[in-house]
Amino acid sequence: MAHSPSSAVLVLGGARSGKSSFSERLVGESGLERHYIATGRAWDEEMRERIARHREDRGLGWVTHEEPVALADRIAAVARADRAVLVDCLTLWLTNLMLEERDIAAEFAGLLAAVKAAPGRLVLVSNEVGLGIVPENRMAREFRDHAGRLHQQVAAIASEVYLVAAGLPLKMKG
Amino acid sequence: MAHSPSSAVLVLGGARSGKSSFSERLVGESGLERHYIATGRAWDEEMRERIARHREDRGLGWVTHEEPVALADRIAAVARADRAVLVDCLTLWLTNLMLEERDIAAEFAGLLAAVKAAPGRLVLVSNEVGLGIVPENRMAREFRDHAGRLHQQVAAIASEVYLVAAGLPLKMKG
Amino acid sequence: MAHSPSSAVLVLGGARSGKSSFSERLVGESGLERHYIATGRAWDEEMRERIARHREDRGLGWVTHEEPVALADRIAAVARADRAVLVDCLTLWLTNLMLEERDIAAEFAGLLAAVKAAPGRLVLVSNEVGLGIVPENRMAREFRDHAGRLHQQVAAIASEVYLVAAGLPLKMKG
Repeated sequence: MAHSPSSAVLVLGGARSGKSSFSERLVGESGLERHYIATGRAWDEEMRERIARHREDRGLGWVTHEEPVALADRIAAVARADRAVLVDCLTLWLTNLMLEERDIAAEFAGLLAAVKAAPGRLVLVSNEVGLGIVPENRMAREFRDHAGRLHQQVAAIASEVYLVAAGLPLKMKG
Repeated sequence: MAHSPSSAVLVLGGARSGKSSFSERLVGESGLERHYIATGRAWDEEMRERIARHREDRGLGWVTHEEPVALADRIAAVARADRAVLVDCLTLWLTNLMLEERDIAAEFAGLLAAVKAAPGRLVLVSNEVGLGIVPENRMAREFRDHAGRLHQQVAAIASEVYLVAAGLPLKMKG
Repeated sequence: MAHSPSSAVLVLGGARSGKSSFSERLVGESGLERHYIATGRAWDEEMRERIARHREDRGLGWVTHEEPVALADRIAAVARADRAVLVDCLTLWLTNLMLEERDIAAEFAGLLAAVKAAPGRLVLVSNEVGLGIVPENRMAREFRDHAGRLHQQVAAIASEVYLVAAGLPLKMKG
């Protein structure tokens, strides 16, 4: 599928695995202007708290963009040769696509094209969700399948892929 | 437990991790006659679709066998020095054993003996299901425990073990 | 956070991954006096069976301590230069803390101090629980978040960290 890998980095990890901190470190080390695309929607108090805590953990020096759905367009608009862009995270974006009943395959194709075309440094964070028991809920099973396919597609064009556990990155590719 | 490792390969991975595609590649690279043992039962429409999609993904050039329960016997019947046999997957086989209330320990012992004795190339695919929250459902907890034990036993006699995430294999043994 | 790593080892793994057996092997190879701190409470028959099975698997030659809550104090009391201490496991300890509505952050800080100060060999086992679908239950989500944070904190001060799957250890640090 991917003949000319992009310079994008995919960072997978579980809940509270340290994947965001690791990704922020990758962006910081690039020395480029730091941009953050948040895909999460603040539906409820719990989510609002998580978003606020993430923002605080990041500290100053970031330009934050909120983009729950039109991620491909936003990456195209934000990415520049002198910028490092962190997308946090693909699984929240997927949640939003499913809630809005978007055409998942078309959205994934759009994202892949934007990732391939992005200049500068692009770091994509996502939750690995496929290593537990099969969920009883059909929607959750579909989500898991979509997430798995998305990770395979992004990993195929990424130049580096990491799996983070306990704050420690394991290099899977690159 | 295992003093003379067999030449079997165990491929673990999550849902839609790319474990089947990776395993098919391993079989393809062997240059041997390709056989596929499908353990899944088409209970419902969702399962029928998954099985059909898998078959389509595999493409031509495979001899397909369906064997939901008597896996050890089937491996003994199909495996030959000039064949590569892909079993997809151990967790669906375990599901069938539990539904039929088989003696799990005896079935595992039978499988291990068949794996050790198999000539040619044998690739066993299975779902890693133990890395999520403890399931509330007792049956799911038992399934998880059985699967974990089965993976340990097969890994102990396998010559190679891989964990696949995002389509990328991580070599655990071999 | 951690400038002088302790000589503690963190062993993460899923259900029935072989993490306890691997940890017991680490302790055995140390040649030191073997101590085992069990954090699990025998709430019900299923739990009693698991604890009994674990004790049987370990075999003779261990001094067993049961400590569901005051883990930091117990480590301080048991650890000595001529002893290897296995704590099994941090996630059951966390379960007990949450059920007793303890101050989680304070408890984690106490544990970290005890781990850093412990002489001899200290091996801490814990369940990786963050790689499945987001649980529907809020308590389970909080548990997952706490466990993830705890693993990051312990991993930061540990000299070695392993992720065990199918009985095979993957070295993440050290």
